[in-house]
Amino acid sequence: MSFCKVFYFCFLLISGNNAVAVTYEGTERNCSVIPPYLPSTAVSTTLQLQELRYQMRLMSISAYIIPGTDAHLSEYLAPRDARVAFMTGFTGSAGTAVVTQSKAALWTDSRYWVQAERQMDCNWELEKDGGGDHIVLTSLFCVCDHLQFSPLETQEEYAINLESSNRTLKSMPDNLVDKVWKNRPPIPPDSLTQRSWQTKVEHIRNQMRDNPYEPTALLLSALDETAWLFNMRGNDIPYNPFFYSYTLLTMDEIWVFLHMNRLTDELKAYLNSSCTGPLCVQLKNYEDVLGHLKTYVAQPGVKVWIGTEYTNYALYEIITPQDKLMTSSYSPVLTTKAVKDDKEQQILRDAHVRDAVAVIQLLMWLEQAVPKGTETELSAAEYVNKCRSQQKDSRGPSFETISASGPNAALAHYSPTEETNRKLTVDEMYLVDSGGQYLDGTTDITRTVHWGTPTAMQKEAFTRVLMGNIELSRTIFPSGTRGVNMEMLGRRALWQVGLNYGHGTGHGVGNYFGVHEWPVGFQSNNVPFRPGMFTSIEPGYYKDNDFGIRIEDIVVIVPVNTKYGHNYLTFETVSLVPYDRKLIDTSLLSSEQLEWLNNYYKTIRELVGAELDKQKLKEEKDWMLKHTEPFSSASVCSSSLTVVALAIALLHNLV
Amino acid sequence: MSFCKVFYFCFLLISGNNAVAVTYEGTERNCSVIPPYLPSTAVSTTLQLQELRYQMRLMSISAYIIPGTDAHLSEYLAPRDARVAFMTGFTGSAGTAVVTQSKAALWTDSRYWVQAERQMDCNWELEKDGGGDHIVLTSLFCVCDHLQFSPLETQEEYAINLESSNRTLKSMPDNLVDKVWKNRPPIPPDSLTQRSWQTKVEHIRNQMRDNPYEPTALLLSALDETAWLFNMRGNDIPYNPFFYSYTLLTMDEIWVFLHMNRLTDELKAYLNSSCTGPLCVQLKNYEDVLGHLKTYVAQPGVKVWIGTEYTNYALYEIITPQDKLMTSSYSPVLTTKAVKDDKEQQILRDAHVRDAVAVIQLLMWLEQAVPKGTETELSAAEYVNKCRSQQKDSRGPSFETISASGPNAALAHYSPTEETNRKLTVDEMYLVDSGGQYLDGTTDITRTVHWGTPTAMQKEAFTRVLMGNIELSRTIFPSGTRGVNMEMLGRRALWQVGLNYGHGTGHGVGNYFGVHEWPVGFQSNNVPFRPGMFTSIEPGYYKDNDFGIRIEDIVVIVPVNTKYGHNYLTFETVSLVPYDRKLIDTSLLSSEQLEWLNNYYKTIRELVGAELDKQKLKEEKDWMLKHTEPFSSASVCSSSLTVVALAIALLHNLV
Repeated sequence: MSFCKVFYFCFLLISGNNAVAVTYEGTERNCSVIPPYLPSTAVSTTLQLQELRYQMRLMSISAYIIPGTDAHLSEYLAPRDARVAFMTGFTGSAGTAVVTQSKAALWTDSRYWVQAERQMDCNWELEKDGGGDHIVLTSLFCVCDHLQFSPLETQEEYAINLESSNRTLKSMPDNLVDKVWKNRPPIPPDSLTQRSWQTKVEHIRNQMRDNPYEPTALLLSALDETAWLFNMRGNDIPYNPFFYSYTLLTMDEIWVFLHMNRLTDELKAYLNSSCTGPLCVQLKNYEDVLGHLKTYVAQPGVKVWIGTEYTNYALYEIITPQDKLMTSSYSPVLTTKAVKDDKEQQILRDAHVRDAVAVIQLLMWLEQAVPKGTETELSAAEYVNKCRSQQKDSRGPSFETISASGPNAALAHYSPTEETNRKLTVDEMYLVDSGGQYLDGTTDITRTVHWGTPTAMQKEAFTRVLMGNIELSRTIFPSGTRGVNMEMLGRRALWQVGLNYGHGTGHGVGNYFGVHEWPVGFQSNNVPFRPGMFTSIEPGYYKDNDFGIRIEDIVVIVPVNTKYGHNYLTFETVSLVPYDRKLIDTSLLSSEQLEWLNNYYKTIRELVGAELDKQKLKEEKDWMLKHTEPFSSASVCSSSLTVVALAIALLHNLV
Repeated sequence: MSFCKVFYFCFLLISGNNAVAVTYEGTERNCSVIPPYLPSTAVSTTLQLQELRYQMRLMSISAYIIPGTDAHLSEYLAPRDARVAFMTGFTGSAGTAVVTQSKAALWTDSRYWVQAERQMDCNWELEKDGGGDHIVLTSLFCVCDHLQFSPLETQEEYAINLESSNRTLKSMPDNLVDKVWKNRPPIPPDSLTQRSWQTKVEHIRNQMRDNPYEPTALLLSALDETAWLFNMRGNDIPYNPFFYSYTLLTMDEIWVFLHMNRLTDELKAYLNSSCTGPLCVQLKNYEDVLGHLKTYVAQPGVKVWIGTEYTNYALYEIITPQDKLMTSSYSPVLTTKAVKDDKEQQILRDAHVRDAVAVIQLLMWLEQAVPKGTETELSAAEYVNKCRSQQKDSRGPSFETISASGPNAALAHYSPTEETNRKLTVDEMYLVDSGGQYLDGTTDITRTVHWGTPTAMQKEAFTRVLMGNIELSRTIFPSGTRGVNMEMLGRRALWQVGLNYGHGTGHGVGNYFGVHEWPVGFQSNNVPFRPGMFTSIEPGYYKDNDFGIRIEDIVVIVPVNTKYGHNYLTFETVSLVPYDRKLIDTSLLSSEQLEWLNNYYKTIRELVGAELDKQKLKEEKDWMLKHTEPFSSASVCSSSLTVVALAIALLHNLV
């Protein structure tokens, strides 16, 4: 529904004296009735829009883009960076807003259309976006915007699109939204986790030294790059142990840019900030990064290496002329971080064993509580968060728990609110996608259950999603194979009957970092798989206004012995929670899939069993054992077995 | 083995007075013995190298690259364009040669290393190339070459690499190799196949009109583009019904550039060359294309659309400034040509039915003749070519038949010569990859057979290659899925036991064109699959110095009904020749694979059976029926069946 249409329609109504108060029910806004219908979840944005447009007029800017990210292109935002939510009311994790004097529009993809209609008032037009910022451009009649926060690729796409329509881009010092944002949340203080960092710095320098393009410096812009390099964590951003920072690394110097006022003496000592030399960190103010980079680049013979996927345009445009710039999609820090060493692998596995205890506690509790009709999506989310918080080295959830019942689960990324909160019943399917941050690792797991009697279609869809998860998990492939060339195995059993899902099949995860740790995963821009990488495998199926299914496990890439060849790999599942037996139609599974499933359950019994004993959780252990009973392979070749039965029956009669 | 090493080694031998005549046996050259050992297959290149180097000195060129393609970047070359073969002796289909005053080197990929060692003398160094021309550059100390015949991408890569080492590229009017090439083969005359072309022109113009970048002209450079657009065929190039040509298409004019002296009056009339207007073809001399393009581009407001994959650099560099150039990987002619209409699909299927008769005749004859010990790779190749020539509308083979026994088959692209010709025996596996050109279609099929007793490993490898072919062929996928995202299904059964193959999994094919018809296929730069596209599916396995297996079929992409969804596709196999039963271990096949195989054999019986009846080929029909007997699914669930037997046995004893 486009803006013009709305006005045109209203106009007709009024001129025809048909203006009547329409009584309208529903969870979504309706801007085509008089007065517009707004659900209780909609946020009024009139005031902030007025003020932003005033600021735009002052600076004679005709259109202003508000990207849904921060200066580091982080996926998760600090409250103080949630500018799109402040301006539009929409809180989804993907969205780009554009404001002109006459128009205000939000672009987001299909996962979030319903949510946007629930949260936005009629100041905002919803542009349904297949994904990709370019759509913003091609459908806008005029744009001259502030792009400090756009990824390189996006910015260049903008520039190209705009050229052809004679528009120009302006890069500006200040963010206009921040100007009109009263009570913008402050920056929270640091915390710190201890490990050694000097060897990492040397390792990265070796990669710079070996690079044929001979970079003299490496600029680290993504928050987890500096966090990983110096083994530091913060809490600037919910669910992500990050702190605002940049690092400029050369062969003989290290500059780290962060909020100086937050530096403890302990931290300064840890970073050798008082000495000078290649392993002494020179601490600079967060705001000084642009100026410092400019000064560095001005020197003769320097070349700065940046990873384009996580470097914002303001930094990028400083590095001129071109021959002083060297780019790769991902910095050597991100590609090195992606491959976990033996110790990192072990502690990440350990974190998943403890995490399984928390999820098992949730599922056991729901099994008992739901039939009483007392529980909701919100109370379930609170419960699993509480269970995790009781586990060793817990640092809270790794993202906002997705606790979705019935139709709500059809929104792949739904999280419950007071307004949308749904009671859990034995009549609806329930999907819970949650994860924990622990000092030793980050977890992310999804289980879908039914406490009553699933329909045949629900059972088939769930089984085929599970088949996808198993087929991908058990496949053997040569080292260096890319996820994008295998991910169809996660979809194939669904494709077979004309079903599919609209999201990716997996993302990397690591040792106490963001829950989405690129560049590992199954997307086309992800790197080839190597032993020691961790990724999620999460096929799903979503039936609009009915139910949603997703089965997500974290796996680690491990070497495997094959009959004839060398350097072959496979996945080993480290998430250790049983699937809902009631939803599995074993007759659809191949004997190999059934065998994989029984082996997986055996592993759960061994590893989680031991942990449950250690934590003296007798009831949970019984529940786990009951739900990991091996499946009989009877269903496979059932026909032949019928023959057995028949043969025996007949012979008995003969006797 | 690098040049320097050779000389160093020789020097040592001589200085130590150890120079001795080494008697050396083998099919490959050995340049490290004194005198160098050359097999009878090696070609002496001293003379042409002397003359080329003389020409280079005259023009003060320090290094000269000879790409293995022609001005149209064709994959198959006319004899007169086989410049690499003339200079090096090496006749493989992929190779780039570089000559300096002191050095001569050939780059080719692993498929051809052995062949190169057999065909080159010691003037040439063999550079083992993982694939990709860039290797030529990065390993050359100096290059300033003639690049008229390099693809855009390659040229730009050259330029970038050279810049960094302060080399410059020179584009030159004449080809130096042609200058030193006495008796270069002449251009053969045209032939012509009739169909209507005006609608195609209008269809392409509509795509130009609809393009947002508003091109005013389309330049067609690949030979099959002009051939398809005007329904013309020629015979300038072996195995490919092409003729030298370029086309420049605008909204109101059509210029075709070809060798005027070859134009018959019939052809001129067919192309409306006497009239003027949007559907009248203005015929120009082949050599005039550069000049004419220059003149066209000089006009204001023009923009020329080129497909970068098949446009040579000489044409590309004429189109300046940049805003007069519009590029896509493939021209709209190639993408339109890729989707066959109903009639094209039907006649291409028909061609494969007749082609199956020829291949069945070969296999039947070999089964009888080989045990007598009278046949060879060459006689088999001749036989299948003869069989095809007897089929309706035959226009000869679509490529040089790959007829390879035992170790020769381990070279994926081996073709027999007098020197390498191998006797066919019941002790060796035999691979035959061949195809035919017919007026209605082009075919390409590979079968691998064993007339004696295969080893367990041969049987397992063959079965797993077949499983790959079947898994890919039977898979169901959403319309628009890319081949590169599914091709691992062709490898997975091999990966399972640590086996793999080093070539692609398939390529497009069409109605009387080149046997490799891009952009359809399973490579990363191929277009998404749509109904009506044809591609080969050809997994394989190659064991060095032992045997080679490949199973290749042509399939057509067809819509398929699914239980829940719409717009899903699958493959339907149109190659109709049974596989060697002796090599199939049915116990490895899943019940779905076995079912697919039996259905495929049913189709062969129906379609090829009818054709064999029509051609009154009784013996062939009996052979076909014998080799398409349905497989029993007993082997699946054999364990359970043992149970049946056991149960019955026991009960009998009880009775």
